[in-house]
Amino acid sequence: MSSPESQQAALGVFDSGVGGLTVVRALRELLPNESIVYLGDTARVPYGSKSPDTIRRFSVEDTQFLVGHGVKAVIVACNTATAHALPLLQATFRVPIIGVLEAGVEATLADPNCERVGIIGTAGTIRSSAYQYALAMRKPSLQIHATATPLLVPFVEEGWTDHSALKLVLKEYLNPLLAKGMDTLVLGCTHYPLLMPVLQKMLGKKVRLVDSASTCAAHTKRVLEDQNLLRTARSKPTLEIFLTDLSEQAEAMAKRFLGTEFGKVKKATL
Amino acid sequence: MSSPESQQAALGVFDSGVGGLTVVRALRELLPNESIVYLGDTARVPYGSKSPDTIRRFSVEDTQFLVGHGVKAVIVACNTATAHALPLLQATFRVPIIGVLEAGVEATLADPNCERVGIIGTAGTIRSSAYQYALAMRKPSLQIHATATPLLVPFVEEGWTDHSALKLVLKEYLNPLLAKGMDTLVLGCTHYPLLMPVLQKMLGKKVRLVDSASTCAAHTKRVLEDQNLLRTARSKPTLEIFLTDLSEQAEAMAKRFLGTEFGKVKKATL
Repeated sequence: MSSPESQQAALGVFDSGVGGLTVVRALRELLPNESIVYLGDTARVPYGSKSPDTIRRFSVEDTQFLVGHGVKAVIVACNTATAHALPLLQATFRVPIIGVLEAGVEATLADPNCERVGIIGTAGTIRSSAYQYALAMRKPSLQIHATATPLLVPFVEEGWTDHSALKLVLKEYLNPLLAKGMDTLVLGCTHYPLLMPVLQKMLGKKVRLVDSASTCAAHTKRVLEDQNLLRTARSKPTLEIFLTDLSEQAEAMAKRFLGTEFGKVKKATL
Repeated sequence: MSSPESQQAALGVFDSGVGGLTVVRALRELLPNESIVYLGDTARVPYGSKSPDTIRRFSVEDTQFLVGHGVKAVIVACNTATAHALPLLQATFRVPIIGVLEAGVEATLADPNCERVGIIGTAGTIRSSAYQYALAMRKPSLQIHATATPLLVPFVEEGWTDHSALKLVLKEYLNPLLAKGMDTLVLGCTHYPLLMPVLQKMLGKKVRLVDSASTCAAHTKRVLEDQNLLRTARSKPTLEIFLTDLSEQAEAMAKRFLGTEFGKVKKATL
């Protein structure tokens, strides 16, 4: 089904900005032999507040860029783009297209005791209802409560992930979900893994947290195995990072999200 | 110097998003006989976190759109775009280009007792040092303390302009400025006029607040008078609003910033 060349090709990953590097970080931990080409559309970030048409146009351009770099599969590491553009991308391109959202849905339902799910994400992700539909289709008895939490990305980007103001903001957003008896919280945005420590402290062991970055990496591994696309070469895998806008701020954030140093970031023109 | 046709033409106003409508609101109060064409680049908002090159490219495209609509002057109602692109725009286009930043600088220095100035704005505006340079050039004895306050725009856009979390955030940002004895605070972002009530409560009468929207309207009036460009027609002036991305969220915010209803928003393609 796949040629040896495509096995050795890189995985393509795109996001509206640098948040998707939390997915790259999880991929590198789980699939350390894979090469990765990452595209962050930092010139047009964020997607979360924009319209479905615009998000679809941007997502097609992002995927075209990665396919032009010869990738063997594309991971949409942006919940908003997955929510609005995944079917269009899958119909348009021949390589497998993996969405961060489906992985989160699978991981949520992996626990059979899950009854009351809270979902947080950007305005675009929540308004799309993609998580809500996907969960409800697969488990109709599920109680689902979704809330747009647009202030969380700016707090993560400011680096205030343990600030008392953030805790007040989280309370404002999460108290209505807790009042509904939520047993599982889906972190529907690739920025949110950096909030895991504060969320774990706030929610204790009562609420299971489903983080889209690590679940997406696990899902990608299964797809590569099923399609016989795992890289077999013994040479060192590569990591290339392209951004559509270069700034010190974006590079500093990229390091924080990736959790490690990396080589020179390249400028991409779409 | 100017033809009667150009007197009757509209003012062009652009911003990275809908925040610049606070400037339109101030313009309509001060110059109620002027027609206005507004362009909000909502598809690429925000500019504040992007690089100077990208901000200049976007600003030229925005200005071209307005000039293509026959405006008699262009008001850059975005502090970040003014900071990085104003000289380029003035060198490139023949109509007067008015920046929101110079107006704020003038208003700041209008009070001869002003000695210690705090400036708040987006990362891009503060990093450009445009306010800092402009103030220092005109009054070398001034003590200037500038702070990037990237969380304020998201709070305004969320509508949490009186939330206790916002007050903690403002304290974190402003306490270092107050410790320096700040007597004047320049609100270097067109979103910030909506924070005037909470800032006035927090800072009392000790600190003079300079709001870039109303100072920009006053500056525009002077430029139009000087260049004999005030509209003399007695017909009702028009207001046209173009956005590069249409979404319910952007339209709802636009109403809040403009403080009034308006007709149908049009989609602009740059």
